[in-house]
Amino acid sequence: MTTETNNKKKTLRVGMIGYKFMGKAHSNAYRAMPMFFSGAPLQPEMAVLCGRNAAGAEAARAQFGWQELETDWRQVVARDDIDLIDINTPSDAHLEIAVEAARSGKHILCEKPLAITLADSRTMLRAAEEAGVKHMTGFNYRFSPAVKLAKKLVEEGRLGKINHFRARFLQDWLVDPEFPLVWRLKKEIAGSGAQSDLGAHLVDLARYLVGEFEEVIGMTETFVKERPLPSEERGQSGKDGTDQIQRGPVTVDDAAVFMARFVDGALGSFEASRSAPGHRSTNAFEINGSKGSLRFDFERMNELEVYFTDDAEDVQGFRRVLCTDEAHAYSEAWWPPGHTIGFEHTFTHEVLEFMSAIAEDRQPSPSFVDGVKCQEVLEAVERSIEERRWVNLSEMAESGS
Amino acid sequence: MTTETNNKKKTLRVGMIGYKFMGKAHSNAYRAMPMFFSGAPLQPEMAVLCGRNAAGAEAARAQFGWQELETDWRQVVARDDIDLIDINTPSDAHLEIAVEAARSGKHILCEKPLAITLADSRTMLRAAEEAGVKHMTGFNYRFSPAVKLAKKLVEEGRLGKINHFRARFLQDWLVDPEFPLVWRLKKEIAGSGAQSDLGAHLVDLARYLVGEFEEVIGMTETFVKERPLPSEERGQSGKDGTDQIQRGPVTVDDAAVFMARFVDGALGSFEASRSAPGHRSTNAFEINGSKGSLRFDFERMNELEVYFTDDAEDVQGFRRVLCTDEAHAYSEAWWPPGHTIGFEHTFTHEVLEFMSAIAEDRQPSPSFVDGVKCQEVLEAVERSIEERRWVNLSEMAESGS
Amino acid sequence: MTTETNNKKKTLRVGMIGYKFMGKAHSNAYRAMPMFFSGAPLQPEMAVLCGRNAAGAEAARAQFGWQELETDWRQVVARDDIDLIDINTPSDAHLEIAVEAARSGKHILCEKPLAITLADSRTMLRAAEEAGVKHMTGFNYRFSPAVKLAKKLVEEGRLGKINHFRARFLQDWLVDPEFPLVWRLKKEIAGSGAQSDLGAHLVDLARYLVGEFEEVIGMTETFVKERPLPSEERGQSGKDGTDQIQRGPVTVDDAAVFMARFVDGALGSFEASRSAPGHRSTNAFEINGSKGSLRFDFERMNELEVYFTDDAEDVQGFRRVLCTDEAHAYSEAWWPPGHTIGFEHTFTHEVLEFMSAIAEDRQPSPSFVDGVKCQEVLEAVERSIEERRWVNLSEMAESGS
Amino acid sequence: MTTETNNKKKTLRVGMIGYKFMGKAHSNAYRAMPMFFSGAPLQPEMAVLCGRNAAGAEAARAQFGWQELETDWRQVVARDDIDLIDINTPSDAHLEIAVEAARSGKHILCEKPLAITLADSRTMLRAAEEAGVKHMTGFNYRFSPAVKLAKKLVEEGRLGKINHFRARFLQDWLVDPEFPLVWRLKKEIAGSGAQSDLGAHLVDLARYLVGEFEEVIGMTETFVKERPLPSEERGQSGKDGTDQIQRGPVTVDDAAVFMARFVDGALGSFEASRSAPGHRSTNAFEINGSKGSLRFDFERMNELEVYFTDDAEDVQGFRRVLCTDEAHAYSEAWWPPGHTIGFEHTFTHEVLEFMSAIAEDRQPSPSFVDGVKCQEVLEAVERSIEERRWVNLSEMAESGS
Repeated sequence: MTTETNNKKKTLRVGMIGYKFMGKAHSNAYRAMPMFFSGAPLQPEMAVLCGRNAAGAEAARAQFGWQELETDWRQVVARDDIDLIDINTPSDAHLEIAVEAARSGKHILCEKPLAITLADSRTMLRAAEEAGVKHMTGFNYRFSPAVKLAKKLVEEGRLGKINHFRARFLQDWLVDPEFPLVWRLKKEIAGSGAQSDLGAHLVDLARYLVGEFEEVIGMTETFVKERPLPSEERGQSGKDGTDQIQRGPVTVDDAAVFMARFVDGALGSFEASRSAPGHRSTNAFEINGSKGSLRFDFERMNELEVYFTDDAEDVQGFRRVLCTDEAHAYSEAWWPPGHTIGFEHTFTHEVLEFMSAIAEDRQPSPSFVDGVKCQEVLEAVERSIEERRWVNLSEMAESGS
Repeated sequence: MTTETNNKKKTLRVGMIGYKFMGKAHSNAYRAMPMFFSGAPLQPEMAVLCGRNAAGAEAARAQFGWQELETDWRQVVARDDIDLIDINTPSDAHLEIAVEAARSGKHILCEKPLAITLADSRTMLRAAEEAGVKHMTGFNYRFSPAVKLAKKLVEEGRLGKINHFRARFLQDWLVDPEFPLVWRLKKEIAGSGAQSDLGAHLVDLARYLVGEFEEVIGMTETFVKERPLPSEERGQSGKDGTDQIQRGPVTVDDAAVFMARFVDGALGSFEASRSAPGHRSTNAFEINGSKGSLRFDFERMNELEVYFTDDAEDVQGFRRVLCTDEAHAYSEAWWPPGHTIGFEHTFTHEVLEFMSAIAEDRQPSPSFVDGVKCQEVLEAVERSIEERRWVNLSEMAESGS
Repeated sequence: MTTETNNKKKTLRVGMIGYKFMGKAHSNAYRAMPMFFSGAPLQPEMAVLCGRNAAGAEAARAQFGWQELETDWRQVVARDDIDLIDINTPSDAHLEIAVEAARSGKHILCEKPLAITLADSRTMLRAAEEAGVKHMTGFNYRFSPAVKLAKKLVEEGRLGKINHFRARFLQDWLVDPEFPLVWRLKKEIAGSGAQSDLGAHLVDLARYLVGEFEEVIGMTETFVKERPLPSEERGQSGKDGTDQIQRGPVTVDDAAVFMARFVDGALGSFEASRSAPGHRSTNAFEINGSKGSLRFDFERMNELEVYFTDDAEDVQGFRRVLCTDEAHAYSEAWWPPGHTIGFEHTFTHEVLEFMSAIAEDRQPSPSFVDGVKCQEVLEAVERSIEERRWVNLSEMAESGS
Repeated sequence: MTTETNNKKKTLRVGMIGYKFMGKAHSNAYRAMPMFFSGAPLQPEMAVLCGRNAAGAEAARAQFGWQELETDWRQVVARDDIDLIDINTPSDAHLEIAVEAARSGKHILCEKPLAITLADSRTMLRAAEEAGVKHMTGFNYRFSPAVKLAKKLVEEGRLGKINHFRARFLQDWLVDPEFPLVWRLKKEIAGSGAQSDLGAHLVDLARYLVGEFEEVIGMTETFVKERPLPSEERGQSGKDGTDQIQRGPVTVDDAAVFMARFVDGALGSFEASRSAPGHRSTNAFEINGSKGSLRFDFERMNELEVYFTDDAEDVQGFRRVLCTDEAHAYSEAWWPPGHTIGFEHTFTHEVLEFMSAIAEDRQPSPSFVDGVKCQEVLEAVERSIEERRWVNLSEMAESGS
């Protein structure tokens, strides 16, 4: 179904469902890729943007530069002139759209978490596999050049055998107890809190860099247990009987901590919190292997710190590697050494991977398989919290779910 | 001459002369601005790209997304349907293009250094002023959110009276003595070395943040005095009589150091080098005032370090401020707190400033006036080196040039 | 029993049992205190050093500057002219010496861990309490000025309610698989590995700064399971039947990870490892509270990083506080601001605390009570590992042990 | 004249003139050396402390642990039982004491700056050379393990040819305009300001690490030109006619900036200030060579950052080397890797060098020769400021002074 433009570049026509934070990030990636990766075998074409709120969606369409607007995702999925469906709606809508898109033979890029439940994510994967389409989960942090370097160092054995992985994703927007009770803080809508929002990224990075999980155990806490109702949900006065602002219960976690053992014997330590003052978005990890270590912090995403045990004895120390050199992934597309890139570029690289995979007729990495496996770990942690015990990943096997 | 699109957004049609490193950066800015600053009163329209090499320019046009191609800049400048000329050619071509563009009534965005000589830059400014067009010099580093915060802190008096400005712009691509003798290393073509390439940015930042220069004195050095001729310039064998690779003399500086006294009494210390291993592009400065200090390093461009003397006695220390909060310039256009931006974004902000200035019928900042004043300082430093003495900026006054 | 010197300073005569790493650190503290804290109400007098190996102990005595030598600790404990017994032998000897010292009415400074088992540590505490002597456990890291500042900020409520404590103590001397099987790697002698050696410090800092533990769960791993026998333990050839160097099993952990919930609701995350390349001795922690955060790394022990949520909106960020100002603990004894101190100074401050406590007739902090409580946590973690379940600290209550 | 103690260790009996900041630092070094460097061929014996104020000096004697007190330095210098004179009085007294000590055949350790003028420092050197005694200048920063590593890397050619040296010594105690007009701020007593106090250390480090200076030019500024008289110097009311606190003129510089060219072609950039908020004592430098770079900041004195151009292409970056490993200078005397030392330890190493030099019958490094050469540079800078021109070091040759 790929079309050829007059300059003979093959393009894939994209229909994007959702247009908020992630929709903006994805749109920018589709805009940037043809310029910065003009040599790619396939380029995205920003065909249709879809949102239920016609006014908001039209504003986004015009701002982001999509050709057409739809307000019903089923229309988009059904269109013959669309090759790829990009899903970045709230998580609870992923399942239905993805399954339908697969049935319509569309390739699918779906934001993480893949679905609200492990079972749903498996349904999505099955649908995509049965339809024979390409499927990708939006774990964008994999596409930082520094993370790519980390992957390369691990794969080439330059860190030796991995013994430790410790990671934390810390934010601080929930520290203020007067921050209102938005939908993300209600279990019935959001499913979970920091763990699925932030922890999901850590789990994917761990799988990407270290390997599969063997067993996990976790704990969570909600530090602020009641919050003011959003103004639109308050009664006429906005006050309760004692003349206080009306409050409601927070039903998801503010923070989650968990430990893991990896199949290959490494120990994992994880933490996700939205109540860590001073951390706007610290997505950081460290790996210790038998021959060296590395560490990363997304707030300084262009840097990777690396240590090798075989450096000369008098000059051993963590090196701050600025990943903008020719030797680093994606650098040829951007700017000279020392000229950094930002958050949004991870999505451009993600789209590049998807376009390349489709052109090469292979599944992209990370695919829905990675989305499902991430969900297995998250649900295992959840079970470990409920049952206050170690949960082995084998318990999450399909028959057992 | 501004046109209205069908959605009633006013646009300015841009003709860009040059398409290499800076042409790419500018093109990206023109592409990004309508999406990220959709509310701006004027938007750029990527009308014509111009380059002498038709094949190369056409490839760039297609890649960057310009509507049309021209190979003769005079054609572009003469066109009635062009509102703004963007000049990012090699520096020696700035003068002629800018003067012609001004005469044709076009607004002008010109890369730094404004011209090869102070006299030329003054000619350009005069032409622009006489034509009544808007003119801007491309000192993009001003447009980092962290630099904007620095400016705000200084202007609000939160650092008190400024006593010290120290700055350095360090790169390392000339450390390798086998790096070839490219045109940038020949005085007849490039005019100068690290000083005008890197030092120009430091001088502009100093003027922006501290104020005008009173007097300067400097020194320069060329550490690698001969380099291999580029392969295309070598004779048939590429070797000289002793069977060595042919080499030629480097005629510009590898590094420059200079001191300055500012009109308001602050002391300035400056250094520019392309021979500083480990520094890919360290554009860094520190300001010390009577009430506090701040410092910036472009390799970590999202951060500003700030110190206040009136912090509580037991918790005084430099704060690492990640300039991605609501309180920081441009943040509303980009991503949530903690999600960083990169080098290219400075150009997007630069274009926003130019579009806003035109819409508001004022000169942008930095204008050609800033380009000229920067050149005054650079040429004063040059004279101080030749004559081995302090040079007062009053000596650079127009009558004295 | 305190004596008066001719300059009327009261002194306490110390008998020190042990003279290796900790003996050296303690000796330096006794030497330094009279000079740097000359105003203290009591000063130590380096009376007797005791070690079983006469030659080694005499060398240490002469080097460290003790007045007399003994080779039998019972003789030291029995002497009438000794006021304080300092125990820094291998851990398995603590119990007997401490109990005997208490019975002889001596004050006791004992290195951590207080004893090999929780039960033993309780016996020690009981003996000291029954004898009415002063008792101190050597958790020296409490006495870093930066840790004292952390304590002050927490106590004054400047961080608000504590939500997170995360800590790690990482070293790398066991990464090399050819490092020999020293006694510290044998369970029968050392009791435990990284957990009791390094983790004990983290547990004490957590209790000091956050409060008591509610429940814990942990895991451990031994990455290198066999190591070469030390040369003195090998057979004549030093080789086994296959002509390999003889190896023996490592019976303690290389690394331990555990999670905790504190009584006041904070979440704790802990990690201790001797297999983390690049970390010579990273004893680091971070606290997140409702009003701010702080963090510390012993490799930069003069610094505390602090963040406050109520800083002005545009300049929020972690401050690097160099804890050498007048406002910081102990600074008046040392050097001007900006002139740092080192590892050994923590012991000088520790001895100051003990001397002050004795002079003021109060128990020092940390006392044996803190040693016992730390042991409770360590043993709870150990049980949690063996039984693969959460262990509540109430299970460690004396009746339950 | 060296004596033997009963344990056969040779000792040198020290007479110390002065007992304030430096007297305290030196005393600690004499106390620490026998314990930490017990194997040194010579040990200092703290024989006599001398100070004009009998009460103050006696208190210091008792506190620091000197055997005897003298109040007339001539008495100390004349004593037969003294081997070494340690001079740490105010600078204007150095000349007379040092010359007299040399004539009495005593070895001399003199604090920097060696004297108030270059001529005086030369007189001191001549006296010491004629007397055939050993002489040392107290440039203690040379003795940081990290600086020793820097020296080693340079000497072994691991940085290649040195192109850049940039250094700054920043403090902030003069930022407050109400800080009183102490003697250090009066030219007639202190000679000079930040330049001789702080800049002297930078000049010595530059000579130590890079080599001799060729030419210099500098500038200075006094930001706060009047300060309150110290309370003891005010009239009865402490107010002037307008009821203001009495103020007097500051006659030394608050800050100095200078540039230098080294004999071997490197460029030098220097800055010393006591008006740089946030810098308690930032004594920092960076060296760029043809094969690598290194940098140091005394506020993190245990660390050296090092970069090599021949590191693998994908992992190039500055390494943070914690200089506490076996491979680093002095580490065997102190603590295990990762356990840091502080400011005072530089003096212990300095005394070790002096004792070793005397035992080996060689001049220590740095000797008075280094003190004189430092003074040559400082006085050349001073002349360059007065005469507003470059000054070549050849102008400072003895005949020219």
